[in-house]
Amino acid sequence: MKLSCIQEKLNKGLTLAGRLVGLKATLPVLNNILIEAKEGKLIITSTNLEIAIKSIIGAKILKKGSITVPSRLLSDFVAKNQDKKIKFNLKENILTIKSRHSLAHIRGIEASEFPLIPKIKEAPKISIKSGDLLSALNKVMVAAAIDDNRPVLAGVCFKKKDNELKLVATDSYRLAEKKIKDESFLKIDDFTFIVPLKTSQEVARVLSILDPGMVLIKFNENQIAFQMVGVEIISRLVEGEFPEYEQIIPKDYETRAELTPRQFSNTIKMVNLFAEDSANSVQLNFGQKGQVRVEATSNQIGDNKTTLKGKIQGKNNKIAFNAKFIIDGLAVLAGEEKVGFEMTGQFNPGVIRPNKDKDYLYVIMPLKTDKE
Amino acid sequence: MKLSCIQEKLNKGLTLAGRLVGLKATLPVLNNILIEAKEGKLIITSTNLEIAIKSIIGAKILKKGSITVPSRLLSDFVAKNQDKKIKFNLKENILTIKSRHSLAHIRGIEASEFPLIPKIKEAPKISIKSGDLLSALNKVMVAAAIDDNRPVLAGVCFKKKDNELKLVATDSYRLAEKKIKDESFLKIDDFTFIVPLKTSQEVARVLSILDPGMVLIKFNENQIAFQMVGVEIISRLVEGEFPEYEQIIPKDYETRAELTPRQFSNTIKMVNLFAEDSANSVQLNFGQKGQVRVEATSNQIGDNKTTLKGKIQGKNNKIAFNAKFIIDGLAVLAGEEKVGFEMTGQFNPGVIRPNKDKDYLYVIMPLKTDKE
Repeated sequence: MKLSCIQEKLNKGLTLAGRLVGLKATLPVLNNILIEAKEGKLIITSTNLEIAIKSIIGAKILKKGSITVPSRLLSDFVAKNQDKKIKFNLKENILTIKSRHSLAHIRGIEASEFPLIPKIKEAPKISIKSGDLLSALNKVMVAAAIDDNRPVLAGVCFKKKDNELKLVATDSYRLAEKKIKDESFLKIDDFTFIVPLKTSQEVARVLSILDPGMVLIKFNENQIAFQMVGVEIISRLVEGEFPEYEQIIPKDYETRAELTPRQFSNTIKMVNLFAEDSANSVQLNFGQKGQVRVEATSNQIGDNKTTLKGKIQGKNNKIAFNAKFIIDGLAVLAGEEKVGFEMTGQFNPGVIRPNKDKDYLYVIMPLKTDKE
Repeated sequence: MKLSCIQEKLNKGLTLAGRLVGLKATLPVLNNILIEAKEGKLIITSTNLEIAIKSIIGAKILKKGSITVPSRLLSDFVAKNQDKKIKFNLKENILTIKSRHSLAHIRGIEASEFPLIPKIKEAPKISIKSGDLLSALNKVMVAAAIDDNRPVLAGVCFKKKDNELKLVATDSYRLAEKKIKDESFLKIDDFTFIVPLKTSQEVARVLSILDPGMVLIKFNENQIAFQMVGVEIISRLVEGEFPEYEQIIPKDYETRAELTPRQFSNTIKMVNLFAEDSANSVQLNFGQKGQVRVEATSNQIGDNKTTLKGKIQGKNNKIAFNAKFIIDGLAVLAGEEKVGFEMTGQFNPGVIRPNKDKDYLYVIMPLKTDKE
């Protein structure tokens, strides 16, 4: 391998490929990144055996070749290098990196030891605007399970029907759903698959760095590829069926309060200070003089009642929630001017819907309380 | 206790008093903050038995009294409360906190259980501009020992002689000294004492929040008080003698390089990527074509040589350092345009001096290397 490329491009390529590190760090090659010099381009691949990210940058290739080198070392080194042009030269597994002010040698491991990255060919595909996908991921990932005791919950479900693609996540305590509508989806067969949470996070991370464009998603039964300009993310899919969640989304409500997300969240956080030793259980009372009263009681530390102004429709009502789940839901809606909080009796789930986005909802399961 | 005060003032008072939490968290009152309503003022005290911080705010006192309540709970609650006025009312160790939108009760512990905070009376005192003290602390604390295996090193030495107050810290690998000169110091007897690092950090934290003013320092053999407008920090002093460090500060040099701190630091960080498995040992070579060459070699990962432009005076020279110590020293000088790096042979300490501040220096001990 012998090539020269622009530091800025190389740095971006390394940032995009990220630092996926293998779970089995006993295998040294999994701490490495694969670099391949091909016809007119340099391909950088990072993998943890579940996800792989490939980024492709333009380079002047003088001699093809490939090697793996420690991922963090290479990316930190290139990020700190302030020279314009960087040259690679590979000899017997030693990568020489030369720039105007710097000369480095990095000991590599042969490319043949790097895990094979699967290719998804002849598969169904769907094209989505990158902004739509990024926004939908950011709004639903918050509801996914973090541990994978139930693997189907530790992911984001992509469910396509007719002209609508729904992204859904739930950890069984709360659920977030965002619909993306596009007439072009009509041409594609309906599908459902579950993308692991970690993969979804990597897709969101990459999309947040890239300029806006289109994302092409290709998938088969076990694998998925997200293809963007200069980057591809390949991942396994989660095996198993996503729960039939539609029936838990309330169709209507007895009581609706219209609130400012920032204020609502601040009040919940304030009252939750008194609920930290009682499983973050806060009670919401709707309809007291056109106000929402939020309260919590701790036998040990004390109690708090705080009122919040809001337009309230429907009958008086009260319900208890885990404050953290409301705070999480409102955090992704911080940019919205107003949200509606809807509920029907203390044993049914509550729903947060932004006023200006009818395609998003966040459902929260109520807590049982001993109090009347 | 019955009083009313402005939320903004109360929040600032709580922020200044901080959240010192007792080391012996088995004693519940050490998680609490002491609030005392006295004639026209509210005094808030936080302590961990080694340091105490008192902040004093104006309040409308309707009935005097005192109580301790959980520190984090009260400060978080007041910080999140968006009402203008806050009222306290104490009945049988329950503190009622009332504001326009909120009503809380917090279970307290009697003030009599709170540790006594020592008072320093009839003691020598010195007055320093708050900006000078803050800047000096920030520039020397970086060199103090973090663990207190040798307690005298886990602190900042204040050494006053004639019109000069020196602040010095060293962990025996590097040393930082900053002089503050003031003719008013001439009137005061000379002194030396060591302020624990944690106390120094709290003083710097408080000074960074307060408006500029004067700091009055009072001390006796064991204790010190830093008095600022509305805040007082009381602490034990470190027992023992600070090392006689003056003789290790080189008086002159064989070689001096004039460098930009940001560039110098960036180069050291870049080269240090190759020294992480060899105790961060990087070598500096001065005088190769008017350049500083920084290099590191790791048997495992590889090596790097990077050059840095600088004005070099004196003879060619080379020396090895722990990169982290150079990076720390340059971090506090990031605002300086140019610094001088001075050295005399590979077995003597190096010195960093900012061009525009003759009263500051940062000394680093060299590392022994096997290489010639």
